[in-house]
Amino acid sequence: MNITVGVFNFLLCYTLKKRIGGVFLEIMLPQEFIYRKREGKTHTREEMEEFFTAYMQGEIPDYQVSSWLMAVFFQSMTEEETTNLTKIMAESGETLNFFDFSTKTLDKHSTGGVGDKTSLVLAPLMAHFGLKMAKMSGRGLGHSGGTIDKLESIPGFRVDLSREEIYEGIKKVGCVLVSQSKELTPLDGKLYALRDVTATVESIPLIASSVMSKKLAGGAKHIILDVKVGKGAFMKDLENALNLSRLMVKIGEMADRSVVAVLSQMDEPLGCSVGNSLEVIEAIKTLKGKGPPDFNETIITLGSYLLFMSGVVKDLSEGSEMVANALSNGRGLDKFRELVLFQGGDTQVIDDYNLFSIAPIRKVLPSTNSGFVADVDAHDIGLASLILGAGRRKKGDNIDLGAGIVVRKKVGDKVEKGEPVFEIFTSSENKLRDAYPILEKAYKVVDKPIPPLKVILEVVDKG
Amino acid sequence: MNITVGVFNFLLCYTLKKRIGGVFLEIMLPQEFIYRKREGKTHTREEMEEFFTAYMQGEIPDYQVSSWLMAVFFQSMTEEETTNLTKIMAESGETLNFFDFSTKTLDKHSTGGVGDKTSLVLAPLMAHFGLKMAKMSGRGLGHSGGTIDKLESIPGFRVDLSREEIYEGIKKVGCVLVSQSKELTPLDGKLYALRDVTATVESIPLIASSVMSKKLAGGAKHIILDVKVGKGAFMKDLENALNLSRLMVKIGEMADRSVVAVLSQMDEPLGCSVGNSLEVIEAIKTLKGKGPPDFNETIITLGSYLLFMSGVVKDLSEGSEMVANALSNGRGLDKFRELVLFQGGDTQVIDDYNLFSIAPIRKVLPSTNSGFVADVDAHDIGLASLILGAGRRKKGDNIDLGAGIVVRKKVGDKVEKGEPVFEIFTSSENKLRDAYPILEKAYKVVDKPIPPLKVILEVVDKG
Repeated sequence: MNITVGVFNFLLCYTLKKRIGGVFLEIMLPQEFIYRKREGKTHTREEMEEFFTAYMQGEIPDYQVSSWLMAVFFQSMTEEETTNLTKIMAESGETLNFFDFSTKTLDKHSTGGVGDKTSLVLAPLMAHFGLKMAKMSGRGLGHSGGTIDKLESIPGFRVDLSREEIYEGIKKVGCVLVSQSKELTPLDGKLYALRDVTATVESIPLIASSVMSKKLAGGAKHIILDVKVGKGAFMKDLENALNLSRLMVKIGEMADRSVVAVLSQMDEPLGCSVGNSLEVIEAIKTLKGKGPPDFNETIITLGSYLLFMSGVVKDLSEGSEMVANALSNGRGLDKFRELVLFQGGDTQVIDDYNLFSIAPIRKVLPSTNSGFVADVDAHDIGLASLILGAGRRKKGDNIDLGAGIVVRKKVGDKVEKGEPVFEIFTSSENKLRDAYPILEKAYKVVDKPIPPLKVILEVVDKG
Repeated sequence: MNITVGVFNFLLCYTLKKRIGGVFLEIMLPQEFIYRKREGKTHTREEMEEFFTAYMQGEIPDYQVSSWLMAVFFQSMTEEETTNLTKIMAESGETLNFFDFSTKTLDKHSTGGVGDKTSLVLAPLMAHFGLKMAKMSGRGLGHSGGTIDKLESIPGFRVDLSREEIYEGIKKVGCVLVSQSKELTPLDGKLYALRDVTATVESIPLIASSVMSKKLAGGAKHIILDVKVGKGAFMKDLENALNLSRLMVKIGEMADRSVVAVLSQMDEPLGCSVGNSLEVIEAIKTLKGKGPPDFNETIITLGSYLLFMSGVVKDLSEGSEMVANALSNGRGLDKFRELVLFQGGDTQVIDDYNLFSIAPIRKVLPSTNSGFVADVDAHDIGLASLILGAGRRKKGDNIDLGAGIVVRKKVGDKVEKGEPVFEIFTSSENKLRDAYPILEKAYKVVDKPIPPLKVILEVVDKG
């Protein structure tokens, strides 16, 4: 084919409709849709529906969608386009509804960070206050498993509940922690898989719509978004994180949900444990009132907003007090026990951590000098954790549930030369050998005192 | 899958190699290759070879390549990257070589325009001067067929010659006009087909490498590029056309070929005939010394540069004179007759145009007022020609070889009210009805005299 005669035809396509009133082209060609975005035009809801319906029906191939995704990376989307895409994705599969529970339904999403075991603590706490949370999570790729993988470190715990079991759990326990249904937002699933292999992940409107489509389909009225910012997070800087947060809150408003985004630091890991069994143990300790300060603060902040949004408390300080109390008096733990029982898990693990599988090779990494910890790099720790076996490098990889890292010194801590900075858990000497040098460079000690990192950076409650 | 944990993994991929010396990732992931272009980085020759070899072997799917193409649209490529891509495409299939003919080998490419029948005249003229030209062309999409379709309006003319026949034709006649071998530049074929449906055609480095890959694989030493500029061309403005031209000339230099780009106007059609049989008749008339002035000028300019580049003449004015003479004294026509004979065509058509198929429905479009023609819109005429049946709307469509338009008035011509502006040829009253209103608006008459359009706009002979 002569390239430029082809080009001429290509240009004709866009003209025909305009020039002769749609005689030749009744519908928009996929390449015209891509072309419009490439040129920075705004899509109508109708043309987006047409394009993505055809995609779901297999009439538009991946290669057209991936070039559109790259065009979106460069040209972005308006709030309205992003909301429309979000709704189209949310409506592409089944949706849950909890009308029986009126406005008491909650949902939560984290943009992902190292050591993030927040859902395990937050869901039972909120259930304790009479709120309803069917938290759906994914399996993880990267530094550790996802929430679902973590939960599977509890012997017997079933993450694949039927729809009926989910409703039953909500009624009886008040919360369930389940794997995301494949029938939920299948369009998002297809788009995300495509973005993952076409370098089109890092687009704020695409991230926002992916996150929010699952939250809209999940059916809850009140949604808290935990947006991680820093070295160990997708969002490295506050400005991008704020833009993403505002956009997600805006989409929520446009879709008649109440949404608050809490931006929290991810320069160092959240809490002290990274890895699957290790993080579940830390979550249980936290529910016993013995959590690390930064993790406690995160839980209290997120929890108080959820209590306030759903009308349980009149103001945030009342909410904070109630959440802090439920952590220290063990009421959240009682609810967690109910949850584990309902989902078939062995509740004995709550009292005996030895029932968790912990990797056999353990090694302490001592500090090379004395002073104050100035950096505990979440990115490096995530990478080391992946290498140790706690995460997946690609879909379908096996996870070593017992592998991981315990961070013994956090930013601001005083440290003596030779004192442990990290405890390392793995099942392979080779993996230890590969991960160790990364961890050696993952912390920094300085002479002068350093304050701990600020945990909560910003809260966005208006779009 | 948790979106942002996926993201985290995505980012890890880029880090692993750097951080731990390639232990985990020996080769570059396709998404890393795309990511690098997305971020405006420059590809090495090695990584391009790796990526496109894997693509040709089916190991990289179209959806990764199409997102890379869109990234190139936005981030462009350096001259070196473009040259590397060109060479990789040129070497992706068979290549021709004409070492026997040393530096006497020529090739030509047009970026495509309305009424462009240049190759039909230029090839026999150059052969007359002892030069060698195996001109490969494509079938067309758009306003008319490609050169290959046009030639098929000569009864019996065979466009699919074997490699041996091509060499024989070069030896005996000095030129052949054949369809492009499917074995030539298969990577360009794949990429072009993908660009055509993913709105990634209009990228100067991608256009330049596509054109030049076929010229490099074609094996000729001297290459003339006919770059069309204006309403009926892909390149609407001179600046883009100059950029494309300079880049193609540069690629030629880097690949040890001599390349000259001639930029010519395409605001109105080239010559007077648009359509397959109609254009071949005009080409024959031109070889008889009776061509339209703008077409003559184009041929003389391109021809004189080819004669100069290949050392036949000492300067361009000598070349111009020789080409003009060969047009008026019928020597080019003799060579054309040899060519038609060699390729199995009926040479009687040269003397009796009635042997061409001409569409039965003929209609004259008269001028609505008197004055001077200020515009004969090549784009609209191309569109009307397509609608009349002369072109293909999609690959595989049948062409009506006898359909088309004869432009009776060109820009600058004096016209009286009621005088024919266009003669329309088609086989269907419906098509006539659709095309007629487009042609009614395709010309403009003004009161004051207007000069004819400048034919040759620029010449680029250095990269």
